[in-house]
Amino acid sequence: MSETATEVVQAFRPAEAEVVQALRPAVAARTKHVTLTALAGLPMVKPGDDLAALLAGALRCAGIVPADGDVLVVAQKIVSKAEGRFVDLAGVVPGARATKLAAEVFKDPRLVEVILSQSSEVVRHRKDVLVVAHRLGFVMANAGVDQSNVAPEGSEHVLLLPEDPDASAQTIKMRLDDAFGVNLGVVINDSFGRPWRQGVVGVALGAAGVPALRNLVGAPDLFGRKMRVTEVAVADEIASAASLLMGESDEGVPAVLVRGVVFRDQPVPASSLIRPRELDMFR
Amino acid sequence: MSETATEVVQAFRPAEAEVVQALRPAVAARTKHVTLTALAGLPMVKPGDDLAALLAGALRCAGIVPADGDVLVVAQKIVSKAEGRFVDLAGVVPGARATKLAAEVFKDPRLVEVILSQSSEVVRHRKDVLVVAHRLGFVMANAGVDQSNVAPEGSEHVLLLPEDPDASAQTIKMRLDDAFGVNLGVVINDSFGRPWRQGVVGVALGAAGVPALRNLVGAPDLFGRKMRVTEVAVADEIASAASLLMGESDEGVPAVLVRGVVFRDQPVPASSLIRPRELDMFR
Repeated sequence: MSETATEVVQAFRPAEAEVVQALRPAVAARTKHVTLTALAGLPMVKPGDDLAALLAGALRCAGIVPADGDVLVVAQKIVSKAEGRFVDLAGVVPGARATKLAAEVFKDPRLVEVILSQSSEVVRHRKDVLVVAHRLGFVMANAGVDQSNVAPEGSEHVLLLPEDPDASAQTIKMRLDDAFGVNLGVVINDSFGRPWRQGVVGVALGAAGVPALRNLVGAPDLFGRKMRVTEVAVADEIASAASLLMGESDEGVPAVLVRGVVFRDQPVPASSLIRPRELDMFR
Repeated sequence: MSETATEVVQAFRPAEAEVVQALRPAVAARTKHVTLTALAGLPMVKPGDDLAALLAGALRCAGIVPADGDVLVVAQKIVSKAEGRFVDLAGVVPGARATKLAAEVFKDPRLVEVILSQSSEVVRHRKDVLVVAHRLGFVMANAGVDQSNVAPEGSEHVLLLPEDPDASAQTIKMRLDDAFGVNLGVVINDSFGRPWRQGVVGVALGAAGVPALRNLVGAPDLFGRKMRVTEVAVADEIASAASLLMGESDEGVPAVLVRGVVFRDQPVPASSLIRPRELDMFR
């Protein structure tokens, strides 16, 4: 807000004007209309593919001209595939710990070996369930190691998460920003289960150019009372919204363009969405 | 799909046609473009207000003609307000259990008394944190009892969740269906924290006319492999998407129209999203 505008507002707000002031420009720019568009036109992604180039092509193919503030949500699976994050179970020899755990959860010991290699901690396990803390910090099933939509039946390849999803998002963002001359957001999403609710929802594994976590500390509520809810997981909400268009099975929509979300904070990465271990009451 | 169309498809799909067939009509109708529109033009909602009538007015005011399959997401707060779910703390006398717990969590003992009255179980508590199982089944902070955006400073009123959010959603749906001659979905949303992730996200407390939980059991993945992820919390994803437009503080957008999500299953209520206690590994 310009200094003149600030003075005008203050003239009409004799009390508390300065305290509230910092919030006004943000409130003025409000999210009123959001569109989500599925990007078809992506080929099956292979290791070594230039994913940003494929995404740019899919945007052009869809007739979309990206604009400042648009957010491209990209499925974790195609990021991992492009980064070649495959492991062939045929070459995995399970250790003693994986073999014992595999018997308890009724999974392939080689798969469990791979899951443990990606994990810092086993959080819960029982038949058909293996919830771990991924080394990146995500508490999730099977460390995100994926057998669905990875390779044709008969192959024993599984797919790991990207090595550094925030960095992957940043790379895609910079390439697309260059290609289209804009300032985009990029979110890499995956589907997570929740402890107390049935069904999976989209969450943000990586993010660039968006405030993944929005801080509302000190913002007034409708009646001027200080808010108690202090943080909103904006990137997770964007990831969930995009998941509505991506589907989970053979629908194969690996990217969605989100337009219209008004951001009022500086970008922070998706790693900010991970609750620090010492604040976790549920392990 | 018509019988003729089925025959045409089968003619081009000699193998496995019958097995895959049941999935084809669903896959053919895919969510490709979704729009979310914030509904302004709602007054402050008061106990006894006819919320469906207010929502119908806000839709007309926004120039929106609802269409079959549109989903109206309504903030829990205005549903609770219309249903008069206020409690005046001035009239609450905390019992011994609430008084002891209040000292441990540093909250008003009268507020804790109200929270306990809404809860079946205290799941975790510590300074500033009180996670309970609401009698409706939701594991959530403070049983959803709300002090923000409820009443002007000085008042001691707090706001409870709707008595039966699925029923509230169904009532709104039927009234709006009548008013506009369409078949709508309605989702009542709130913001929940998560154990392992920072920040709140929108979730569905109540739903009508939408498959709140979508079952993918047996659906093939891109390579025909049977899916392992079997359920998607569609109503939670819709709730999160709408939350992007609602905000949390003084933004005051209590309803969002979502258009374009293609549903391929029968409606099920939001209560289906609650994980049964006996399957919960995290209490």
